[in-house]
Amino acid sequence: MTERPDQPPITSPRSERVRTVAALAGRSARRKQHRFRIEGPQAVRSLLTHRPELALELLITARAATDHPDLPDLAAAAGIAVHEVEDRILRAMVRETGPESDAPDGTGALVSPQGVLAVGSLPAPDAAGAVTAIGDLPSNRPVTVVVLHEVRDPGNVGTLIRTADAAGADLVVLTRTSADPYAPKAVRASAGSLFHLPVITGAESAELLPALAASDITAAATSGYAPTELFTADLPERIAWILGNEAHGLDEDVVAAAPLAVRIPLAGHAESLNVHTAATVCLFETLRRRRARA
Amino acid sequence: MTERPDQPPITSPRSERVRTVAALAGRSARRKQHRFRIEGPQAVRSLLTHRPELALELLITARAATDHPDLPDLAAAAGIAVHEVEDRILRAMVRETGPESDAPDGTGALVSPQGVLAVGSLPAPDAAGAVTAIGDLPSNRPVTVVVLHEVRDPGNVGTLIRTADAAGADLVVLTRTSADPYAPKAVRASAGSLFHLPVITGAESAELLPALAASDITAAATSGYAPTELFTADLPERIAWILGNEAHGLDEDVVAAAPLAVRIPLAGHAESLNVHTAATVCLFETLRRRRARA
Repeated sequence: MTERPDQPPITSPRSERVRTVAALAGRSARRKQHRFRIEGPQAVRSLLTHRPELALELLITARAATDHPDLPDLAAAAGIAVHEVEDRILRAMVRETGPESDAPDGTGALVSPQGVLAVGSLPAPDAAGAVTAIGDLPSNRPVTVVVLHEVRDPGNVGTLIRTADAAGADLVVLTRTSADPYAPKAVRASAGSLFHLPVITGAESAELLPALAASDITAAATSGYAPTELFTADLPERIAWILGNEAHGLDEDVVAAAPLAVRIPLAGHAESLNVHTAATVCLFETLRRRRARA
Repeated sequence: MTERPDQPPITSPRSERVRTVAALAGRSARRKQHRFRIEGPQAVRSLLTHRPELALELLITARAATDHPDLPDLAAAAGIAVHEVEDRILRAMVRETGPESDAPDGTGALVSPQGVLAVGSLPAPDAAGAVTAIGDLPSNRPVTVVVLHEVRDPGNVGTLIRTADAAGADLVVLTRTSADPYAPKAVRASAGSLFHLPVITGAESAELLPALAASDITAAATSGYAPTELFTADLPERIAWILGNEAHGLDEDVVAAAPLAVRIPLAGHAESLNVHTAATVCLFETLRRRRARA
């Protein structure tokens, strides 16, 4: 492990550098610094393996460097600085406080980075980027796109990205009104999946449906009122699942604009599914069909 | 709406009665009082409709009583007292503080009961109850049982019960080492499903597998190492999905003891699914098969 000589070691949990990383819990600080943070060995390994160009710096305890010797090696391969720090420094860096905190009540949520933290370069929100990414998808095979529209909780956004990855989605697009997938809570919940597939933020919902149609991808919404049931629906091989807000689901006009609407059958007395459960059912049914055809 | 004359109106958020209900955030207080609390119109409606025998008292604001006129009627039908209270009283009753709080960091989590709160009689944990409930399931048709073993987060427990309900499960059994489904966070996450199907706590895991086998129900576990894939597995019509701890999954001996182990196919780079995602995939695949046969 190498210490770059250009920065002194971080020894105080109240130092400016610690506060700068801690501030990345807030969206405005992320935008101002053009950075975000990644916590824990698994997520940092995914960053360094799949998106090394985003990595700026690795902070690691001596113990974690012994337990995860691949991480300093991956950081070196990515050409970024590695700083050995004490665990109390890392803990101070992930303490979330203040009005912009992702902690549920704005007070300090205690999470452990397990001795490993990386700082990454924040990809800019890009309305045009979503349209470009859809156009860049391969045109001659099945594709699965996930669109998160007004999903407001960063934890839900992260978990949805993790599930999209597991189900083999090719692209995740977040509309401008969704939570930030680069919030620490979202990064943690994604368990590294944020770096496994393209995730584009800042999309304009009005531009998405035409872009999907132009790429021969059918936008599909779930609705409790749809006459067609998911399990018996004719699902296109090129499909984009549009997932909506936690509390009120998708707006009626979004459902009406989507070429396909399906109903997830509910067998018990439950009135509805939460957005992540609905996404899981649709995405794994899509995967099941794809594998059955292969 | 009727006020019972035997108790004075609750006017102070610092009164003994408010503190007694607030204390129900803690497991030991629930056990000592033999009570639990249910928040919000949807969950309280499920309680009063499906399990009225558990209801002890309804607390409701004037506005919520106007918005949800069925609730005082259902309470009257259940023969329980209805108390009109101010919203600030209800908010004080759901403020979670102290070391036993279900809030992630032990500080006051601010949740809104939306003007409606019920107090219910706490079903006692009952190791024999699980075996009895399994034996009581109908013997001549498909059944789906969900066993939660060492699921530690009350929010996960509640969400799993909601998903089990939606997928048409007949019974949920929690082993002694799982989180309490009567914790406020679990009750909220279950969105009423806690009252829609039998939920039995306090089971001894060693007694469950023989009881399931005696009722001709196949215990099934998920494992990343199982050679059989869920989507192509021969799933029995009478099945019990055993779901394990959030961090380390099921112990190897539990997987080895289950007659069936299946692997959920993962298509992307995700290393694993969280317990709720895995449960959703298994339970809705079970529902899909059941409906395809019907």
